[in-house]
Amino acid sequence: MSQTLLFQWFLFFFILLTSATAARVNIPRLSPTGPRIIENPSEILSELASDDLETFFYNQTLDHFNYQPESYTTFEQRYVINSKNWGGANANAPILVYFGAEESLDNDLAAVGFLSDNAVRFNALLLYIEHRYYGKSIPFGSREEALKNGSTRGYFNSAQAIADYAEIILHVKKSFRAENSPVIVIGGSYGGMLASWFRLKYPHIALGALASSAPVLYFDDITPQDGYYSIVTKDFREASETCLQTIQKSWGEIDEIASKPNGLSILSKKFKTCKPLADSDELKNYLDSMYSSAAQYNKPPTYPVNIICRGIDGSSDTENDTLSKIVAGLFAYKGDRSCYINAATNVSETGEGWRWQTCSEMVIPIGRGNDTMFPPDPFDLESYIQDCKNLYGVPPRPHWVTTYYGGHSIKLILQRFGSNIIFSNGLKDPYSSGGVLENLSDTITAVHTVNGSHCLDILYADKTADPEWLVSQREVEIKIIESWINNYYDDLSKQQ
Amino acid sequence: MSQTLLFQWFLFFFILLTSATAARVNIPRLSPTGPRIIENPSEILSELASDDLETFFYNQTLDHFNYQPESYTTFEQRYVINSKNWGGANANAPILVYFGAEESLDNDLAAVGFLSDNAVRFNALLLYIEHRYYGKSIPFGSREEALKNGSTRGYFNSAQAIADYAEIILHVKKSFRAENSPVIVIGGSYGGMLASWFRLKYPHIALGALASSAPVLYFDDITPQDGYYSIVTKDFREASETCLQTIQKSWGEIDEIASKPNGLSILSKKFKTCKPLADSDELKNYLDSMYSSAAQYNKPPTYPVNIICRGIDGSSDTENDTLSKIVAGLFAYKGDRSCYINAATNVSETGEGWRWQTCSEMVIPIGRGNDTMFPPDPFDLESYIQDCKNLYGVPPRPHWVTTYYGGHSIKLILQRFGSNIIFSNGLKDPYSSGGVLENLSDTITAVHTVNGSHCLDILYADKTADPEWLVSQREVEIKIIESWINNYYDDLSKQQ
Repeated sequence: MSQTLLFQWFLFFFILLTSATAARVNIPRLSPTGPRIIENPSEILSELASDDLETFFYNQTLDHFNYQPESYTTFEQRYVINSKNWGGANANAPILVYFGAEESLDNDLAAVGFLSDNAVRFNALLLYIEHRYYGKSIPFGSREEALKNGSTRGYFNSAQAIADYAEIILHVKKSFRAENSPVIVIGGSYGGMLASWFRLKYPHIALGALASSAPVLYFDDITPQDGYYSIVTKDFREASETCLQTIQKSWGEIDEIASKPNGLSILSKKFKTCKPLADSDELKNYLDSMYSSAAQYNKPPTYPVNIICRGIDGSSDTENDTLSKIVAGLFAYKGDRSCYINAATNVSETGEGWRWQTCSEMVIPIGRGNDTMFPPDPFDLESYIQDCKNLYGVPPRPHWVTTYYGGHSIKLILQRFGSNIIFSNGLKDPYSSGGVLENLSDTITAVHTVNGSHCLDILYADKTADPEWLVSQREVEIKIIESWINNYYDDLSKQQ
Repeated sequence: MSQTLLFQWFLFFFILLTSATAARVNIPRLSPTGPRIIENPSEILSELASDDLETFFYNQTLDHFNYQPESYTTFEQRYVINSKNWGGANANAPILVYFGAEESLDNDLAAVGFLSDNAVRFNALLLYIEHRYYGKSIPFGSREEALKNGSTRGYFNSAQAIADYAEIILHVKKSFRAENSPVIVIGGSYGGMLASWFRLKYPHIALGALASSAPVLYFDDITPQDGYYSIVTKDFREASETCLQTIQKSWGEIDEIASKPNGLSILSKKFKTCKPLADSDELKNYLDSMYSSAAQYNKPPTYPVNIICRGIDGSSDTENDTLSKIVAGLFAYKGDRSCYINAATNVSETGEGWRWQTCSEMVIPIGRGNDTMFPPDPFDLESYIQDCKNLYGVPPRPHWVTTYYGGHSIKLILQRFGSNIIFSNGLKDPYSSGGVLENLSDTITAVHTVNGSHCLDILYADKTADPEWLVSQREVEIKIIESWINNYYDDLSKQQ
């Protein structure tokens, strides 16, 4: 199942990446070239005590911030409850809420373990909410209708999404007569940003937030644009210096061969591509994504970066040239397949949805300077804006996230404001470069691990194989959340 | 000039009141029956060193929470700057920001003194921002167009308004290269709610908020519905028990006379109405508003409640019946006029605008039980919703304010979240019943005076006549704000 999430986060990364490169490459590349389709998340789910999960639909307001007649349109928003271990309203037992992000809730249910792993310990009611415009929570009748044009797409943004979560949490608390139950919201990556922002915007609804691998500082110019690729590079350097050098050399060699007559077909053959390569960018972007996702999801026990580098370093190919090593890394990572790189796939809903989100408000400026293992490729905001405008008719609002949620001088601001947020990160995760890595106050805390990767702490725990540092990271987080809840119960008892 | 503000706040109250009574009376009474028009606020303004005020217009986004093409429509939003006493960007000197509420900014500039009175003390840049859909900050070309139908009115709400303020403050800070200058936001009544909500929602933009007479708890069922009229009654009781009894008796007598043949013309003659009374409600509602506004704006040195009660108690009318006493109170309060009560007036922009705001999101349930000096008149939410729906085509969202901004269990929530808000109140102000009257934490503070009325602390100080308790209330507030700013400077210097 972690493979499923790995895939999902990969998509997140991949779309971001391709969005970020919109300005440098031709526009069609904004859409993912080859996302795999999740195979039967419901099957995976059924292995996970799905008997305890109940699905509901909430009649959600389309536009919380407008009073036009259209704003009152509603759509069915999916949420899932597991009340098996809940301690009940009389005990004011806690509610753990998972914030769906840019995918179907089915995938989250199959991959995210933090809630179910801790339900007994917290006597908690578990609530999972799907993000609007994904999965079964689609306005306007169908995904096609919803994404079709500017007038239907416009409601698809983070402020509306967390307002949805506010309404559903209040509705569930009311239904369970659990008005005094403390609510902890949990999310990963984009969902982690939503969780931390929710605690800041709706402290009267959530007592605290666990924001796993949330790059809340990767907006505007807060984080240097090459933060992401610097860490990818560092991960490969730490795995193997020779591997890193081979990759560094490979880009020029690909260009060199591609520029020859018949060069693309030589490359296509060498990399066993499913279709002949259209240009060398197709190959380079694929490898770029592969290395980056290996770094982002560099999970124990296998550690994908190590797998790729073992392939590259250990190549015993008779030719033993740079590109053969790269091919060996690819095959090692992807396993035995009939072909690689450009197999035909459909654009996933995550691909389509996240592309819109990154082209409207979630403008995450990822670029590359001269110090990474990749060719330089700076982020160009002006071209990015123009490309998104061409694609959707409206320009992104690249400063809106910091206007609405903040981010600049975050410690100066939050050291005397707010409380009860955990920003968790794994430092091998390239997105940790945009994460909060120091405590902002006594109760706004950074928990990170040197060896961790993207969202590792909230995935299902593998009780037999998880390394000590991961087990201990989770324990630290749980203890912090327990302290929030205990303080809350103290306050509550004094008040009553 | 305080008379001007008194009038303005009266309007605020008046519209609220008539809105709140929508469910009990016929719908036309949702609109104010007789607001006076402000006479020449610009003349008043010119007395107030208007040379130091510079007016600007910001190209404001119509809809911050949507990405439809229409959302990108902009309108010119007015703001006014006084930089005369500013200490400059190098000193990170503070910025005091006044949040316009449901009226033209001209009125605020003429009435609100807190900023200009303290500009020298804080070396502050002063910024006054007009609320969207009022004054010269009207989308869609004209007020008529803007309020015409559901599709243009829908953008007229508080979440959009404070997002406007966020954008303008950031814009001004950038223009003055004052990125590190601390910002204190200040508002009264509805504007005070906006100020406190702004500090909670945009802590990265405002360091602190002074929320004067902000009834942030007068939503849902947090404050008892009769809170408002209980205080009006208490104010009259404290002024004069006999006066109170006369008023209590008068309602029945009005009804009795009105029910007689020719009764309405007897009443019209007795009260010197400008037009014959249409029904007894017209008279009773007028008196209701008069008593309430006298209580709400029971300002030194004259104290309107005392003026009315002296009129009522001191009546030497030969008849000396109850209604003659009421008439004497009316004349004492309103002064010598050719006629009273139903002079022809136009509906003001405040009247129109606030009616929409109270019929969409600002649902403040004011009702009356059996314990006030007025006839019982409970608030009926269902009828209110229906009436607003009939009027505007869409129902209000009576729970949205508490969903978005909170309010329930406010101490439990904010004792460990947020900082730097002053909730100031005067306990003679009927709206103080919905205000925050106890400290929520060390830095979220309640400052109130026993004898104060609505928004008194932020009006222009009358250096010769203001009573000691008012001078001292203002001093307490200023000291608190100074402590926020000093802490901020400490934090800033440690960071740099």
